[in-house]
Amino acid sequence: MKKHLLLILACGSFQFSFAQTKDSVDIRRIANEILSNSKAYDDLRVLTKTIGARLAGSQGMVKAEKWGVNALKAAGADSVYLQECMVPHWIRGTKEQARIISNRRDMVAPLNIAALGNSVGTGAKGVTAPVIEVKSFEELDQRAVEVKGKIVFYNYPFIDTHVKTFNSYGDAVKYRGQGASRAAKYGAVAVVVRSMTHSTDNHPHTGSVNYAEDAPKIPAVAIGLKDADRFSKRIANDPSMKLALHTNCQKLPDTIGHNVIGIIRGSEFPNEYITVGGHLDSWDLAEGAHDDGAGCVQSIEVLRAYKALGIRPKRTLRVVLFANEENGARGAAKYADEAKAKNEQHVFALESDAGGFTPRGFMLEMEPAKRAKIISWKPLLLPYGLYDFDEAGGGVDVGFLHRAIGTPMGELSPDSQRYFDVHHAASDVFEAVNKRELELGAVAMAALLYLVDQHGL
Amino acid sequence: MKKHLLLILACGSFQFSFAQTKDSVDIRRIANEILSNSKAYDDLRVLTKTIGARLAGSQGMVKAEKWGVNALKAAGADSVYLQECMVPHWIRGTKEQARIISNRRDMVAPLNIAALGNSVGTGAKGVTAPVIEVKSFEELDQRAVEVKGKIVFYNYPFIDTHVKTFNSYGDAVKYRGQGASRAAKYGAVAVVVRSMTHSTDNHPHTGSVNYAEDAPKIPAVAIGLKDADRFSKRIANDPSMKLALHTNCQKLPDTIGHNVIGIIRGSEFPNEYITVGGHLDSWDLAEGAHDDGAGCVQSIEVLRAYKALGIRPKRTLRVVLFANEENGARGAAKYADEAKAKNEQHVFALESDAGGFTPRGFMLEMEPAKRAKIISWKPLLLPYGLYDFDEAGGGVDVGFLHRAIGTPMGELSPDSQRYFDVHHAASDVFEAVNKRELELGAVAMAALLYLVDQHGL
Repeated sequence: MKKHLLLILACGSFQFSFAQTKDSVDIRRIANEILSNSKAYDDLRVLTKTIGARLAGSQGMVKAEKWGVNALKAAGADSVYLQECMVPHWIRGTKEQARIISNRRDMVAPLNIAALGNSVGTGAKGVTAPVIEVKSFEELDQRAVEVKGKIVFYNYPFIDTHVKTFNSYGDAVKYRGQGASRAAKYGAVAVVVRSMTHSTDNHPHTGSVNYAEDAPKIPAVAIGLKDADRFSKRIANDPSMKLALHTNCQKLPDTIGHNVIGIIRGSEFPNEYITVGGHLDSWDLAEGAHDDGAGCVQSIEVLRAYKALGIRPKRTLRVVLFANEENGARGAAKYADEAKAKNEQHVFALESDAGGFTPRGFMLEMEPAKRAKIISWKPLLLPYGLYDFDEAGGGVDVGFLHRAIGTPMGELSPDSQRYFDVHHAASDVFEAVNKRELELGAVAMAALLYLVDQHGL
Repeated sequence: MKKHLLLILACGSFQFSFAQTKDSVDIRRIANEILSNSKAYDDLRVLTKTIGARLAGSQGMVKAEKWGVNALKAAGADSVYLQECMVPHWIRGTKEQARIISNRRDMVAPLNIAALGNSVGTGAKGVTAPVIEVKSFEELDQRAVEVKGKIVFYNYPFIDTHVKTFNSYGDAVKYRGQGASRAAKYGAVAVVVRSMTHSTDNHPHTGSVNYAEDAPKIPAVAIGLKDADRFSKRIANDPSMKLALHTNCQKLPDTIGHNVIGIIRGSEFPNEYITVGGHLDSWDLAEGAHDDGAGCVQSIEVLRAYKALGIRPKRTLRVVLFANEENGARGAAKYADEAKAKNEQHVFALESDAGGFTPRGFMLEMEPAKRAKIISWKPLLLPYGLYDFDEAGGGVDVGFLHRAIGTPMGELSPDSQRYFDVHHAASDVFEAVNKRELELGAVAMAALLYLVDQHGL
């Protein structure tokens, strides 16, 4: 009896170690293929340099969708199709301007501003008003009586001491999202927001403003860190100063956009889906290289590498280039709605939308048993620099699927130190992406998806 | 009896957990200080932008030594002193040139070359000869009879599939180090070496050539990757082609250089030393930002942070800015010789010379028990992204101390993906360094050194 048990145990252990070895060999093949023959970097060059900005509703969006179809076909997808959705159509209009008006003649350099996404414009006459600087919502509330008729300047700094910069972003972003409406309730006429960044340059960083239903919509702009510090001193030293803002943003009628989807049909469970994707749109003032051209080309690269290696997944792999993440996430909503309506069976959904930097692991959100299964694969992933699986979360786009039908989700966790230097700013360009870092992200994604496909969740 | 044992165990566990908690709090204080108030980035800006290149024997070296003294004083060192050593004095001379000579009129663009460090010059007449391309030393040996009178082009590529790029460097660097002498033994008149890099640009990367005693010294130059690929095609398609090389390098008499050393005196064991350092010299064609301005300013930052926080180490902390790592390592040799001659007791020596990129861990080389002690601190270091302690090794400079008197040694392991893009090339400039990545490296170093100081090895 004992002997049999030992034999069974030995066989089990042999099988396990054989599976581990096969997985490890297959992942090594995938990594070698991507590090040697990846098209991700060249794909990104074309997307960023020949198309560039591609906000929902823009011509860039339309061109990017065509690019996506072609790139997925070139990567060898079994089929490629578009999933239509209505997307918002916000435009910046002619370049916004901010001018300091003062009796003093010194320090009259204009501020370099960027309207926040979805912001209303100032109208042709602009908005000219004195400025009140606050460091927090608490200070805003305390000084509520001073706010009426003024421009509120939220000068809340990014926290330096978080090691993971997404924590600083999570902490500060409320001033961008809610700042306008909270100030408008006290009678403010516009807001200026210190950019959500650690950068050492002066680029303003845009991003969506979210207007509350119960407050007037007032214009909202961002300024870079050097201007923010300069402006803060100016406010303190020059009580006569006013700020003149001219922004020309408009919200046009919703228009048609598309998720671009390429698939490899599953060999054993074609009706079980594994989704991997990034978002195809980008803010209008940048090339959208890290955010999120990187996630798109990495997702396409997963498919290309599988095809090049003759890996046929058991489940159907769907590469989804989501529409309109930046100012609406209508693409993700559509994808999730349709999955629910069709009662699709989704095994896992993985996103890359945290930059094309050197990968360190994955954020995961799913039942504990499924998470434990992924964690058990850590030894297979560690040789690729992937050690961090502790954080809960997934990306914005796969989050819709997670909430709609409970799909286990994850997001690639690249090193975050450089991300907010370029996030939503004109500095988010192809040159800021390193070829090998981008490719290692694709290796990480392809490896995890391979394991999920082979072993289920 | 059992009760007592349990009590003792419980106390032990309490003490351990208390120590862990105190360590964890102290490391958090150190990290907060560095991430909030670090001078490392500004120090690096001054070193790279006002001094720049600082090869041994150059005026830049002399200026950098003065800078180092002042920076260490400003950081609060208890004392700062110079340790004199003789250093080699190699100069590039006027910019080197390489011209393709051919009956064909197409493709006549000159190659962008850089003489290898310590290389002899071609003399005023230059060297003009046909070229033989080889992919390896094996091919060189096989084709030995073809080599006489020719320029050998080593076109050995960096391996793409290593995840850690130092493995690719370790694999390829023999062609730079030994290539000239091995070709010279077969009668070659000069060598051209494909640069040791993954970069997507065309910068040539210099670095030392090591001439063998038993071969003629022939000129050696590097070319960038785009030129290497172009040159390779040209060699295949144009048998009449010759290459004309003009390099103007000279080896001048040895001169005087210095290690720059700043200390904090130990409060309990002032005669036990912990060394931390980088090398102050850099190649002449770059600002030496990652290699190794970063290591210098990080080491100084460790001292500054301790002083700012009132941390007085038990052992004497020595920050050493080593002289002449790039083409002689005479500073490191001197430091080790003197430590041995004075019978100094060195507890640990840590180097940062792998770039100012986001840190991932440490290479370590020491007895297994000491290594195990450091590994036991992993949970304290993981919150700072430090997980990789598996590799054996230390830096070039602390290696001398390790070999001379057996000092346990280590080296910061930053992410390596971008390092060889800029290593020894004109692209190694301040702008390639990210402020927070640099600071996190200093956090890692300060944390590990704190633990070694507190608990010994």
